[in-house]
Amino acid sequence: MISSTSNSQIKNLTQLQTKASARKKQKLFVVEGIKIFMEIPADRIRQVYISEDVSADKVLIGKIKEKLKTTGKKYEEICVEVASNIFKSVSDTVTPQGVIAVVEMRDERISSVLNENGDKTVLILDSLRDPGNMGTIIRTAEGAGVSAVLMNKECVDIYNPKVTRSTMGSIFRVPIVISENLKEDIDMLKGNGFKIFAGHLNGTDYDRHPDFCGNVGIVIGNEANGISDEIAETADNLIRIPMSGKVESLNAAVAAAILMYEARSRR
Amino acid sequence: MISSTSNSQIKNLTQLQTKASARKKQKLFVVEGIKIFMEIPADRIRQVYISEDVSADKVLIGKIKEKLKTTGKKYEEICVEVASNIFKSVSDTVTPQGVIAVVEMRDERISSVLNENGDKTVLILDSLRDPGNMGTIIRTAEGAGVSAVLMNKECVDIYNPKVTRSTMGSIFRVPIVISENLKEDIDMLKGNGFKIFAGHLNGTDYDRHPDFCGNVGIVIGNEANGISDEIAETADNLIRIPMSGKVESLNAAVAAAILMYEARSRR
Repeated sequence: MISSTSNSQIKNLTQLQTKASARKKQKLFVVEGIKIFMEIPADRIRQVYISEDVSADKVLIGKIKEKLKTTGKKYEEICVEVASNIFKSVSDTVTPQGVIAVVEMRDERISSVLNENGDKTVLILDSLRDPGNMGTIIRTAEGAGVSAVLMNKECVDIYNPKVTRSTMGSIFRVPIVISENLKEDIDMLKGNGFKIFAGHLNGTDYDRHPDFCGNVGIVIGNEANGISDEIAETADNLIRIPMSGKVESLNAAVAAAILMYEARSRR
Repeated sequence: MISSTSNSQIKNLTQLQTKASARKKQKLFVVEGIKIFMEIPADRIRQVYISEDVSADKVLIGKIKEKLKTTGKKYEEICVEVASNIFKSVSDTVTPQGVIAVVEMRDERISSVLNENGDKTVLILDSLRDPGNMGTIIRTAEGAGVSAVLMNKECVDIYNPKVTRSTMGSIFRVPIVISENLKEDIDMLKGNGFKIFAGHLNGTDYDRHPDFCGNVGIVIGNEANGISDEIAETADNLIRIPMSGKVESLNAAVAAAILMYEARSRR
């Protein structure tokens, strides 16, 4: 059992929790809680930290063992028990649930969605910064049946614990592509028959776009500044969600949800 | 200029910022920042606190004076200067903008929306608890052209600073009714020709409800537990937002947005 904060594994776990640079370098990230643990593709589980608080909880430990069975890895090889106070100090939550897993990142490529059958929707994020919005958007994207979420590197790190938590597990089920060059990837989608609709205050109401169907890319921009000019110029259409009253814009997650569900209902 | 935290006005301001009970008793609440200040109906402004940081900012002070002109109240009567460190200690924001206003609450009654012309949508909230969700929902409700937001007393206090901030001013523009008896108020809406659609996991997909039009009430429930049985039984229809993948539910603000905009597009 680990009982010291100076333990090198604990130090590294704290780095993975708090630093995007450490996550990127090691290609690892951290998720907390048994519910999201059960959603991790088993071959991507690198290590599991269990608080001494819950180590006698047979139901919980049983679930973890069952999950690990599908990997061929043994509980003893992959699970490490941690003293309660140490566990609390590395947890990102107010009431830790006693399970923290270190998970391998996987690179996704946008080209992989092109082979799917039927009409596809790709959600495209330009420099979205708020972790809560990002998590909610990924969760909604799965619900709306989006084929992939494509984003530039200026977006908030999707492996930030606040993001992973608010995805409610969708982070393991929706293909997410971090683009090296967002404009090029959008052009590639266009070359493959996608029409690109960018949410923009200068756009026209989305419900006046009968061609908002088929293979569609929906672009949502930064919370404060919207979509960059470069990306807006690449889009086939600028669309706007009609707003009553004196509302100047909608929350980014709300705008993304309305447009993704509109695309869904037209598929 | 106030320069002590033991000043009675400052003590009360802190109470109004942090305690729902103090707000309720005094029928007053607090908003921060010049943008939302400009949205306050002028006759409801009780007091304005200005940080010494910004007291020499002619543009800002000019805006405040112009706003107060419409009330007949004088700047000197209503504005109090506060030392920077004291102002920071009562501010609810990380980077205070130097303006805090104390505002009178106004009671709204659901009966007042019945006289509006045309098809009306009323959003009904059953025990919604998250301040961020509440603020986003009120903002989206204005954008979707909802006639009123009706909620029970179990909902998070709408005068919580986190809520008012995330409404982006919509709190002053959307009629919000805090119901003494939500079931009775819903029954009153039904008696006036409203059809009530409650978002519910056991419902049928909303896009299969052609009668989701005319005068409509949309019920959204608590984040963890959904709509109470009593309210679900009062509804004419249980509706559900279709979800792909393994998503069990959508974020409450996202679900409210999708249904309010669906009602808008059918009006």
